[in-house]
Amino acid sequence: MTSRPAPTDHPILDHLRQRWSTFAFEPRPLPPGELRSLFEAARWAASSFNEQPWHFLVAARDQEDEFARMLSCLVEVNQAWAQNASALVLSVTRLGFTRDGKPNAMARHDLGLATGQLTIEAVSRGLAVHPMGGIVPDRIRELYGIPEGFEPVTGLAIGFAATAESLSEELRRREMAERVRRPQRDFVFGGSWEQPAELD
Amino acid sequence: MTSRPAPTDHPILDHLRQRWSTFAFEPRPLPPGELRSLFEAARWAASSFNEQPWHFLVAARDQEDEFARMLSCLVEVNQAWAQNASALVLSVTRLGFTRDGKPNAMARHDLGLATGQLTIEAVSRGLAVHPMGGIVPDRIRELYGIPEGFEPVTGLAIGFAATAESLSEELRRREMAERVRRPQRDFVFGGSWEQPAELD
Repeated sequence: MTSRPAPTDHPILDHLRQRWSTFAFEPRPLPPGELRSLFEAARWAASSFNEQPWHFLVAARDQEDEFARMLSCLVEVNQAWAQNASALVLSVTRLGFTRDGKPNAMARHDLGLATGQLTIEAVSRGLAVHPMGGIVPDRIRELYGIPEGFEPVTGLAIGFAATAESLSEELRRREMAERVRRPQRDFVFGGSWEQPAELD
Repeated sequence: MTSRPAPTDHPILDHLRQRWSTFAFEPRPLPPGELRSLFEAARWAASSFNEQPWHFLVAARDQEDEFARMLSCLVEVNQAWAQNASALVLSVTRLGFTRDGKPNAMARHDLGLATGQLTIEAVSRGLAVHPMGGIVPDRIRELYGIPEGFEPVTGLAIGFAATAESLSEELRRREMAERVRRPQRDFVFGGSWEQPAELD
């Protein structure tokens, strides 16, 4: 397994430092129980009015037909590497509140929160999760019968990180690129917008 | 500190099981460095095209004027208990991509992912994070000068969980209510919508 810990400016949990969206997966199945624990981690996320807008469609690698069907819901450039994942997931959110159908402004945000918890659970089990915006929502709606009022948001490739040698040249270049983020002064403000926070 | 571990159906990381949106905080400041590590955890989240749409405004408890100003951006029912937090945060997302201004469909989702990482970092440090949809976006825009193209999404109360005895009767009732979530069969599907996934 390849490790690419984040070059952090401040100490964080090792699971968060090790989290990384690899392109290189070892094509093998997950041990029993792993996916249940990942979804359980998502399940206990916070949500606005405890609405729990998150929904997941899942296909494990050893469910060959289902896995191929779900793979076909990703854009082609993602299919090329996600085909080696141990499981694929499509995340879907409910746009309105269950109780009255009114729009839930937190529908996508709370799906993200739950997906974050799923991801850290995965890392703690030695797995990598690569989230993808590159999905084909209309195809997902049709293939899986997603009802009105629900929106496919992401795909997740979940599995065992492999070495970059298994990748095409282009993906290997992206895989090995430096991990970069904006510094905190660019997004942590105090007093007014764009004023870097002064913190102990 | 009060503990209300989630009654999970499958094993998950202890930090995830202990995560809980308490209403009861001990009104005392955070040790130095804590907030920096929380934002660092958010910083290293994944995001669509590495856009990192997340932004945070923060006020620590010992920055008294700033803390009071940020508290005034919450709806009144939240002010009642969040006033005891050690720090308040307002989360804001950038709605368009930096490179071309086109709408980022993942703007709120990726803020949620980052907030999830911040939250787990906090739990690992013995802190509680209570996310709030109940904020006053127009007031936030005005007080902090949020530019067009950015959207205030949540407030976060961060601090040390206290016992429920410090709460009003109504909040104590909510604090002590059973922790409930939908079962996995209601949101983890395989093959088609509403068909519970069959997983090892």
